[in-house]
Amino acid sequence: MDGDSPRPPRLPEREGSYNYDIESMDGSVSGGGGPPWRRQNGSSEALLRYDDGGDGDRGSTREPLLRKRTMNTTSQIAIVGANVCPIESLDYEHAEYFEVIIIVFCFQCRYFKAFFVYGGCNLVLAASAAAICAYIAPAAAGSGIPEVKAYLNGVDAYSILAPSTLFVKIFGSILGVSAGFVLGKEGPMVHTGACIANLLGQGGSRKYHLTCNWLRYFKNDRDRRDLITCGSAAGVAAAFRAPVGGVLFALEEAASWWRSALLWRTFFTTAVVAVVLRGLIEFCRSGKCGLFGQGGLIMFDLSSTVATYSTPDLIAIIVLGIIGGIFGGLFNLLLDKILRVYSIINERGAPFKILLTITISIITSMCSYGLPWLAACTPCPVDAVEQCPTVGRSGNYKNFQCPPGYYNGLASLFFNTNDDAIRNLFSNGTATEFHMSSLFIFFIAIYCLGLVTYGVAVPSGLFIPVILAGATYGRIVGTLLGSISDLDPGLFALLGAASFLGGTMRMTVSVCVILLELTNDLPMLPLVMLVLLISKTIADNFNKGVYDQIVVMKGLPYMEAHAEPYMRHLVAGDVVSGPLITFSGVEKVGNIVHALRIAGHNGFPVVDEPPITETPELVGLVTRSHLLVLLNSKNFMKGRVKTSGSFVLRRFGAFDFAKPGSGKGLKIEDLDFTDEEMDMYVDLHPITNTSPYTVVETMSLAKAAILFRELGLRHLLVVPKTPDRPPIVGILTRHDFMPEHIHSLFPNLNPHKYHSASMAG
Amino acid sequence: MDGDSPRPPRLPEREGSYNYDIESMDGSVSGGGGPPWRRQNGSSEALLRYDDGGDGDRGSTREPLLRKRTMNTTSQIAIVGANVCPIESLDYEHAEYFEVIIIVFCFQCRYFKAFFVYGGCNLVLAASAAAICAYIAPAAAGSGIPEVKAYLNGVDAYSILAPSTLFVKIFGSILGVSAGFVLGKEGPMVHTGACIANLLGQGGSRKYHLTCNWLRYFKNDRDRRDLITCGSAAGVAAAFRAPVGGVLFALEEAASWWRSALLWRTFFTTAVVAVVLRGLIEFCRSGKCGLFGQGGLIMFDLSSTVATYSTPDLIAIIVLGIIGGIFGGLFNLLLDKILRVYSIINERGAPFKILLTITISIITSMCSYGLPWLAACTPCPVDAVEQCPTVGRSGNYKNFQCPPGYYNGLASLFFNTNDDAIRNLFSNGTATEFHMSSLFIFFIAIYCLGLVTYGVAVPSGLFIPVILAGATYGRIVGTLLGSISDLDPGLFALLGAASFLGGTMRMTVSVCVILLELTNDLPMLPLVMLVLLISKTIADNFNKGVYDQIVVMKGLPYMEAHAEPYMRHLVAGDVVSGPLITFSGVEKVGNIVHALRIAGHNGFPVVDEPPITETPELVGLVTRSHLLVLLNSKNFMKGRVKTSGSFVLRRFGAFDFAKPGSGKGLKIEDLDFTDEEMDMYVDLHPITNTSPYTVVETMSLAKAAILFRELGLRHLLVVPKTPDRPPIVGILTRHDFMPEHIHSLFPNLNPHKYHSASMAG
Repeated sequence: MDGDSPRPPRLPEREGSYNYDIESMDGSVSGGGGPPWRRQNGSSEALLRYDDGGDGDRGSTREPLLRKRTMNTTSQIAIVGANVCPIESLDYEHAEYFEVIIIVFCFQCRYFKAFFVYGGCNLVLAASAAAICAYIAPAAAGSGIPEVKAYLNGVDAYSILAPSTLFVKIFGSILGVSAGFVLGKEGPMVHTGACIANLLGQGGSRKYHLTCNWLRYFKNDRDRRDLITCGSAAGVAAAFRAPVGGVLFALEEAASWWRSALLWRTFFTTAVVAVVLRGLIEFCRSGKCGLFGQGGLIMFDLSSTVATYSTPDLIAIIVLGIIGGIFGGLFNLLLDKILRVYSIINERGAPFKILLTITISIITSMCSYGLPWLAACTPCPVDAVEQCPTVGRSGNYKNFQCPPGYYNGLASLFFNTNDDAIRNLFSNGTATEFHMSSLFIFFIAIYCLGLVTYGVAVPSGLFIPVILAGATYGRIVGTLLGSISDLDPGLFALLGAASFLGGTMRMTVSVCVILLELTNDLPMLPLVMLVLLISKTIADNFNKGVYDQIVVMKGLPYMEAHAEPYMRHLVAGDVVSGPLITFSGVEKVGNIVHALRIAGHNGFPVVDEPPITETPELVGLVTRSHLLVLLNSKNFMKGRVKTSGSFVLRRFGAFDFAKPGSGKGLKIEDLDFTDEEMDMYVDLHPITNTSPYTVVETMSLAKAAILFRELGLRHLLVVPKTPDRPPIVGILTRHDFMPEHIHSLFPNLNPHKYHSASMAG
Repeated sequence: MDGDSPRPPRLPEREGSYNYDIESMDGSVSGGGGPPWRRQNGSSEALLRYDDGGDGDRGSTREPLLRKRTMNTTSQIAIVGANVCPIESLDYEHAEYFEVIIIVFCFQCRYFKAFFVYGGCNLVLAASAAAICAYIAPAAAGSGIPEVKAYLNGVDAYSILAPSTLFVKIFGSILGVSAGFVLGKEGPMVHTGACIANLLGQGGSRKYHLTCNWLRYFKNDRDRRDLITCGSAAGVAAAFRAPVGGVLFALEEAASWWRSALLWRTFFTTAVVAVVLRGLIEFCRSGKCGLFGQGGLIMFDLSSTVATYSTPDLIAIIVLGIIGGIFGGLFNLLLDKILRVYSIINERGAPFKILLTITISIITSMCSYGLPWLAACTPCPVDAVEQCPTVGRSGNYKNFQCPPGYYNGLASLFFNTNDDAIRNLFSNGTATEFHMSSLFIFFIAIYCLGLVTYGVAVPSGLFIPVILAGATYGRIVGTLLGSISDLDPGLFALLGAASFLGGTMRMTVSVCVILLELTNDLPMLPLVMLVLLISKTIADNFNKGVYDQIVVMKGLPYMEAHAEPYMRHLVAGDVVSGPLITFSGVEKVGNIVHALRIAGHNGFPVVDEPPITETPELVGLVTRSHLLVLLNSKNFMKGRVKTSGSFVLRRFGAFDFAKPGSGKGLKIEDLDFTDEEMDMYVDLHPITNTSPYTVVETMSLAKAAILFRELGLRHLLVVPKTPDRPPIVGILTRHDFMPEHIHSLFPNLNPHKYHSASMAG
């Protein structure tokens, strides 16, 4: 290595670039002599010489080092800072500052200094991510997939798709990934896609003065939901460069209702994503866009692998599936516990959130800097395709503290972008690249860090930690079973990733296709399917999928597609909770205003009573938002008389009753009425839905739940069985079907009593 | 070629094998001299020498020629006879018979004799297929996908999944494909999968004495429907060796209701299919299974192709998509017209069905034998990877009438198995293999033959003709636009196939994934998506997808997922048709028997009347099958008194009311009652569904249709708006929502009047 014999730097001091590489430092240790910055310059020169990229301007030694990093093969968009950067390359100004510290400390202490720089950068990035998340949009923390899933089920949680959330999601995710956390950008990208779709669907944001009115088409629930489904599909398609995987993710995990039109719309969206991505990659092929754009649409190309496998391989794969199921179930269990602890901390306020994030950041930095010291140096393989050791860029063979010609396997995993670590694990024909001990340490570290990182106040995806951990134990199993199986450890890593994904997320078809599109390894498809089946089946015995768990833990009233078995033993009338607020067909304004002020309900039954009809008679259902529009028009009457509906409706345009964007609707607090107005009457017939869906009170609750869920209702009227009673018994809403509500009404009902029946059905 | 200089045959006359190859005949033309059978032996020897397969016993000249055909690369299971066989190789006994005819006719006439053999074999196979189809199971004709789709929508057409249909579907499909028709085995395999699933789900067939009782789990509609969905997914997975494609096909095209459990079940099914297929392929790798098992799971491996494409390529692809949309829409239109003509012929009886099939068989034979004569001979490429010309097996370069060293491009397409023709069209680096004129002729022939073949009384799929025609025009476009685009004509063929599939079948994600799994060409995915989007969008402007069209044409009452726009202008009460038959809660047996005999209804409302309650009161709905079980038990009473329900139900077991297998249920004609019994009473309360789904008569028909469709109902009760009327207005069934029914009631309702509103929504 040229760095061994220090030479005078050719560059002027202010224009050259210092390289605080662990590798280069170590290179100078073995060489000895000379002030460190001189040797570092020599090393940086050596680095430039290794750099055999195609660009003409690559040869210039006047380039700062950061520029060089466009060479590497990673494809992660969001790498800005620390995960690779602060150790491997700092630009001049920063370097000079820390230089002082080096000289103050002893020669051996430079490792601590390097850690200080590395950990410090991580800390700053992590703290910024946590700060914007905690102060601007707390809803942006975490993956966002559970929230999007709940939204598409009909739960519009507060500001979950607001523009501020979008902003924090994008920049928080960039900062979080840069801070070297064990987290992914995939979940946040799904949420980002959904936020953008929501912003488009409501025609911009009035709060931030970004409005346009041409998107009135989406002023209804269904089309807005469709649009947000498309947005989440686009997120997956962009994150994994997997357009078909995006469609399937939206189908399998995100959407609650599925129509062929929606399939077609998501397909269209992801096709556009693919074409745009393809265009950007083409545009960036010359290295204009940093880490983005290398490697084409397929991120981890394994297409060269052989496709033969025999019975022993199948046994090894079944073992892998079982391990994946157990680890996946355990992961979900532990994550649930950890999130419950974290939620106690996070509830205490923004400073605590930032403190927690900082703690986890320090632990992460310590793990990724400290653990590679445990690994022994491995001599570079003589037949390595890639240059070994890798200097100055992410790659397969990290030098770390090793002498020249050697690499540190554990550092190659820890000291890389997550994408490159995955690529290393998936790589073929490198069976001996990683020591078993390195893989074990890496697996345990990633598994634990993945668990503790998820709940911090930073946008964080679960895909990357899960794929990393899965690929690691897949490689371990592959190496252990290498004697009985002919498959490459790289393929075992792929199958391990599949098994762990199946074990935690419980997705099947979408994971299968996403892995296929990531790796281009179609002949492995039957094996991937098999391993997913086994791991999902095993993990399903322990608990629910990780996103479902988080939805439950966040208390979002998610309606499952199937009715719970204990619901078969209740009837609809059992769970309606009073007191019921009904309006007359022609109602006093004061009564309406009073009812809207005291009750949080969004739907009210309208009943015509004797002055208007002979017997009390159910007219239908009126919603809060329609009532507010009607009250706002102040079109009141002196007496209790039924008007002609068309007369009232003529005063309104087609879009006055359209669904407003989130946070934009009228509120009862916004309306003022005089005492005279409060004593007047208003005819509710024109705005009443005269044919709401109804069920009889004796209908099985399970059956009512299916009706409610399949039709995507918000209110379901319960009518009496016999005609001699008031025409309405109550209203069922989403909350009345929640297990917590039912168990509070019927504490003796054992939810697990009928579970075996549900398992059989 | 050795055939040029005739030599005495080395084999004893009875043990040698004659080769009635067009190629070998022509070889002898250029050689001249000697009696034809001698020269043919010489040619057959030359053929054996070309045969450089791995098997040790291949060298033996004592093998009959048919044995040799295990060598080729095709993977079509169902090739038995004529498509390649009768011209290329006949065994000795047949050959000797036709030998006489040769000698009687002049030398030039042997082409007519060869046609006679070829066409005759095709004719016999086609006639057998049509005969078993027409006489044993007429329901087995056609693709079967529309019927399976309708079944999964809730339409149980007569004997569509019966064991006889299964039998005819399997053997008819084998015979049909062997007869050289332009049809595929994919549709029939979907139907076969569904039939097998149905057979399993009802625990065997009582009619054919194949019963077992351990499958009681499936004695309900939903689980049986799920099982049949899995069966159809397995069919696609097996036909295309595309497990994920199978899942998506079941989702996109087959199933009407989708649940995550179903996704999981179909995924499991196709994973098992993939593993079993993989095992069979492994087992058959040594050539034990004829044409099956070569080439692994990926049928047309294009993985070596480059993945770069530029803007001109995109323009070429858009053109391809537009052409695909236009041809697809035209195909559907013409197919509809032709099927209507055919149905008139087919209705006249089985002999007419066979006659029609024979006619089409003769036309097909004439086309595939006669048209290659129009093509000029092309000299073999010097750098061909494959042996050229191909003799004695299916391959890229068919000799046909050409001199040695030449091949006939059109014969390479017509005189091959369909799979090999597709492989030829998809092949890369063979830009000049086919003359433009050959491709034009082939396209027109396949397009027309595909149209006229579908309606004949033979199990026939549409995938293969559509892929063939699409690949052909794709190659034409690719060749024409070769100057502006760098893509290989083979890739254009793939994209052409995608565009035509999108234009006819209107599937997107599933076609995309199936093509991906067929070709292993993942980098082309964005282009395939784009071309599918364009062709589907364009074709959707003309008509519906081909399977939807066939469903409508067969008069199956398929419920669309969305309500038609004109339904918004009607209310539920408008379409209920009388007279309504209701029962009292305790009803006279005679009345029930009479009602069941005169009315075909399957559901009857039960109304309690004054002797039992004060005012008429709706109890619920009772179904025909439950009534029959109750009547069969003869548990009658003397007087009109309400019993305790548990007393009655104690006489029945859990499975007495379970859904029987098709054709196995009780019928009213099977029951006999004495006059005394007819005068007795029976309490219907225990078997009444006391909480049926109801709608008020003033509900918009569109809303009622959504309720009906989403919940998969068979009966929907319409109740009056006001309480002072009889408690039930009528029953809505599937037929009441059909456009034909509504238009017969409201002839002035213009179905197209509100269509623009539907397009916007």
